Amino acid sequence: MTTRTVHTLEMLSGGVTLPWGFRAAGVEAGIKAKGLDLALLVSDRPATAAAVFTTNLAQAAPVLVSRDHLARTGGQARAIVVNSGCANACTGDAGVEVAHGMAAAAAALVDCPVDHVLVASTGVIGVALSLEKIRQGLPQAMAALDVDQGAAAARAIMTTDPFPKESAARVSIGGRDIAIGGMAKGSGMIEPMMATMLGFVTTDAALPAALLDRALRDAVHDTFNAITVDGECSTNDCVMILANGASGVTVDEATYEVFADALRTVCLALALGIVRGGEGATKLITVTVTGGASAADARRAAKAMANSLLVKTAIHGGDPNWGRLIAVAGRAGVAFDLNRAAVMIGTIVLFKDGRPYDQAAPEAANYLRNDDITITVNLGAGTAMSTVWTCDLSAEYVRINAEYRT
Amino acid sequence: MTTRTVHTLEMLSGGVTLPWGFRAAGVEAGIKAKGLDLALLVSDRPATAAAVFTTNLAQAAPVLVSRDHLARTGGQARAIVVNSGCANACTGDAGVEVAHGMAAAAAALVDCPVDHVLVASTGVIGVALSLEKIRQGLPQAMAALDVDQGAAAARAIMTTDPFPKESAARVSIGGRDIAIGGMAKGSGMIEPMMATMLGFVTTDAALPAALLDRALRDAVHDTFNAITVDGECSTNDCVMILANGASGVTVDEATYEVFADALRTVCLALALGIVRGGEGATKLITVTVTGGASAADARRAAKAMANSLLVKTAIHGGDPNWGRLIAVAGRAGVAFDLNRAAVMIGTIVLFKDGRPYDQAAPEAANYLRNDDITITVNLGAGTAMSTVWTCDLSAEYVRINAEYRT
Repeated sequence: MTTRTVHTLEMLSGGVTLPWGFRAAGVEAGIKAKGLDLALLVSDRPATAAAVFTTNLAQAAPVLVSRDHLARTGGQARAIVVNSGCANACTGDAGVEVAHGMAAAAAALVDCPVDHVLVASTGVIGVALSLEKIRQGLPQAMAALDVDQGAAAARAIMTTDPFPKESAARVSIGGRDIAIGGMAKGSGMIEPMMATMLGFVTTDAALPAALLDRALRDAVHDTFNAITVDGECSTNDCVMILANGASGVTVDEATYEVFADALRTVCLALALGIVRGGEGATKLITVTVTGGASAADARRAAKAMANSLLVKTAIHGGDPNWGRLIAVAGRAGVAFDLNRAAVMIGTIVLFKDGRPYDQAAPEAANYLRNDDITITVNLGAGTAMSTVWTCDLSAEYVRINAEYRT
Repeated sequence: MTTRTVHTLEMLSGGVTLPWGFRAAGVEAGIKAKGLDLALLVSDRPATAAAVFTTNLAQAAPVLVSRDHLARTGGQARAIVVNSGCANACTGDAGVEVAHGMAAAAAALVDCPVDHVLVASTGVIGVALSLEKIRQGLPQAMAALDVDQGAAAARAIMTTDPFPKESAARVSIGGRDIAIGGMAKGSGMIEPMMATMLGFVTTDAALPAALLDRALRDAVHDTFNAITVDGECSTNDCVMILANGASGVTVDEATYEVFADALRTVCLALALGIVRGGEGATKLITVTVTGGASAADARRAAKAMANSLLVKTAIHGGDPNWGRLIAVAGRAGVAFDLNRAAVMIGTIVLFKDGRPYDQAAPEAANYLRNDDITITVNLGAGTAMSTVWTCDLSAEYVRINAEYRT
């Protein structure tokens, strides 16, 4: 696992422009009815780049184009262009042309090869994205580009998000500081219409493309891929990272864990921001499953609990309803032993050794008044564990998603 | 597939006491705060019996006991006892003793061996079921037992169900009539706290135990196992059938399909009643997936759509949001080709050949005002199909499940 280096890891306020050599902008391009809807992120020098994309088989045009660009460059990029208000998904060949056009327009302004620009979109599926609006907005973004405009970029990528998500950290590697900054948007792990999850991370460390790719995948597994709002999977999800080396520090195998730990920390803060700002959410729920026969089993059970409507509504209602957790554990398709299983809400044991401890229910109900809730379920089948994060399910979630587009 | 014999199949009003030789009762045993909560179903003569039980690994005591009884008798039973108001699940060895006690008390009254009685429970998990109340209620039920009390039994097994579910049919086999009757309860495919799905079916046909078991499994696959309210899986789910031969007709391999078709029809009516009465439901949604690479793929995609919060809330809001269906198809883990896929709401094509037909959206929105909605999604990957049924997701669902036990 990780070599913890907490003594050198410092969380900072700031986002993608905190590391040296990155500038950003967020402008109003008229894609949304109103508000910031076009973000531009530029590294002053060539950067290595890596990304993870949605596993949805209905992949949006910007996903296809960005993946193609990374393959062509072998993991190099100078800029990322992101629009909100339109997902450019299920838009056929015309949509792919628009995504290409976005990259080409930015490349002309930044003065780099077109395949050194990555693109991302979020918003309504099946609606044509206006390349004209992007072309008109980009020069404006280029003019606004600055080291103090990271927050504007973070706001420009929002859709139903109740607040922008930024995170940054500094860590010392070989006696010299490097910084990592990030921004993200999304109200769900997978929300195809309006809450696609997008994450963008920068660092002024230098990393070979393969090592950067590995660091990003490792971090995403424990953070962005460990959250869920509604169990849906978007056509547009992506997390991208640029490493420009402006700090003068190169990360190698020997210092990998220090960098990876800092990156995980920045990504986790962004991921938890997404859950906390989940559609209709009032509580952040940490679900830890222990006693799994394997890590995969523990993750699967934790995800099943985090996506259970009955678990999420019970916590919304402040009900320490451990029976719903046991029922999910039993149907999650993993090894489970009812007689060895246990449920804790906070640190209060409600079920253990095959029998209820309901005398603790009032104490647990009181605990559930908190905004941040921890649930621990032991599957009684081994020693593996996994943690995922979710939010409660409120009537407001239904209202947001039933009334969308009406 | 089925040899359709619609000309001889007649749907009737009635339930478990419509077939010859069955009597039932529903009484108030004080397990719930108020109302009918104990049902007894008795065959006047020995009957062959079959059952399917929840696949949840946290199995309730009555599931363990009924499965054991069927194994001991090789598929014979005289009576079924069902209580609502308490699931007798996660109650340890003491709970198993209570389930045994229920069967023993009924066997003494009916005058049959204890393992010829099947038991089922529905209600809150983790609460002890009072054997004393069952023992006091059963003689009352025995006294009320009658051929016109099927409706009382159907009401006695309800928990949050907004209405009782009964169904019956008559079909001619070899020139002679047999009848099938059923009752069911549940507000979800799997709802661990209060909406466990229970189904009980009777027939006056005679069937060998193995053939009855096959008929029940076939029917359940296409009906009770093809519905979902919230994707949860109960600790107590079961469907049981008794075949007492009182009609004088024996079903064999030659006449199996006629019987199986009638049984499927009765079970489907009960299953659709469960969905229509799903927690907070305002619409019955039929989801048909075509173009699957396999039947399993088609079923998996259909279930994913039927359990998607975004699909269910869109339909609740009357929004013909085909993008959410395509997004689910793409993440369902099945073969899918976006360029060959298609979405129809009712008979209105909204997506085909990789592109939207949004000019039809107003017509589709108008169609969604109906109470019964049909959605068809072609995966573009083959020729297999599957149909499942679900309901919409409303704020009322959240209210019911957040406020339970408070």
